[in-house]
Amino acid sequence: MAEQVKLFGVWASPFTRRIEIALKLKGVEYEFVEEDLVNKSDLLVKYNPIHKKVPVLLHNGNPICESVVIMEYIDETWKGAPILPRDPYERAMARFWAKFIDDKCVPAIWKACWSNDEEQENAIEEACELLKTLEAQLKGNKFFGGQTIGFVDIAANTIGFWLGILLEIVELELLTEEKFPKLCKWIDDYVNCSVIKENLPPRDKLLAYFRARQQPPTGSKD
Amino acid sequence: MAEQVKLFGVWASPFTRRIEIALKLKGVEYEFVEEDLVNKSDLLVKYNPIHKKVPVLLHNGNPICESVVIMEYIDETWKGAPILPRDPYERAMARFWAKFIDDKCVPAIWKACWSNDEEQENAIEEACELLKTLEAQLKGNKFFGGQTIGFVDIAANTIGFWLGILLEIVELELLTEEKFPKLCKWIDDYVNCSVIKENLPPRDKLLAYFRARQQPPTGSKD
Repeated sequence: MAEQVKLFGVWASPFTRRIEIALKLKGVEYEFVEEDLVNKSDLLVKYNPIHKKVPVLLHNGNPICESVVIMEYIDETWKGAPILPRDPYERAMARFWAKFIDDKCVPAIWKACWSNDEEQENAIEEACELLKTLEAQLKGNKFFGGQTIGFVDIAANTIGFWLGILLEIVELELLTEEKFPKLCKWIDDYVNCSVIKENLPPRDKLLAYFRARQQPPTGSKD
Repeated sequence: MAEQVKLFGVWASPFTRRIEIALKLKGVEYEFVEEDLVNKSDLLVKYNPIHKKVPVLLHNGNPICESVVIMEYIDETWKGAPILPRDPYERAMARFWAKFIDDKCVPAIWKACWSNDEEQENAIEEACELLKTLEAQLKGNKFFGGQTIGFVDIAANTIGFWLGILLEIVELELLTEEKFPKLCKWIDDYVNCSVIKENLPPRDKLLAYFRARQQPPTGSKD
């Protein structure tokens, strides 16, 4: 029986793109099913009854949910081009930093971009501190994974690509080369790495997508 | 060189106890360092500079933080008595449910126990729904891991032991046999399983610890 790999996702979602990047890195063929989050499909609700969110990977009829869990599954199922390092301690570090991105950086960035006034100022300060901490993890390496893209790089696609677009929309100068020289260099290397470049949405399309969803200017922002 | 395994933790913390259970399951000898969270040691801050939280596992000088990350590390480093299943799909399911416990159940339970009035009513309802979902995962099995304790069971120690104590303190009847027959049976089997029984804090001591920390009814959670 031919292997069946289906990905239920949203083209503009960084979490969906994590899975596309992981599958492409492994050279796994898959069918992409675009979801409408305003009108979720019966299949999405069937395969992710708990969270009803994208991405969902369906592999030979078995659904897997939560992007980080799916990334680990992909790495364990298709052995070529490892995403996580082999050494247990390095694996633990990769898992720690991916969790740091999801639990700390992503919410702080979101708040820095979409809140107002004093709340926004505090959120920007917090986001900058978190990004400084993350940047320090690059040490002298090209990628978080060393010389090649790995688990943390893929998890950090929110910062590598989406963040710049959000900052452009809300007109915030947060991610400057003066403040974040290593992180900016990483972003440049990241978006120019072929597997990433080929699997990110078009910048203009994403910019238009987020502009259309921008919050009404309830505060001083804009 | 003899292997050095040190655990920085707090005796009353379910997250610390996860690590103790995992190490005991593997038969790993370790030194326990009790932390005072009001006056954190320099070593805790040195080994977990990001979160400054327990537990931290120090293995041959290498610190690992975040209980779920540590559990994976322990399982990959000491091979006997597997904590995660071998099959990639079953591993993904175990990771999904451990994440569900940490991201959904634990905050909801905490809120159900420590909030007031309408907020508490809503929180209780939410906690009950989440616990129903978790209970359904037991299916016909003795443990979440099947016939033996596994990753999800260890992650669920908050529900297996701490929840009953919190409910006793705040005088809530949430976890009844009528409502949760399978979960109550699991709790009974869980706390009576030797590796768990020997690695949980004394019930009376924990009850006194949480009673002493109980918030006044109008106070907000610390």
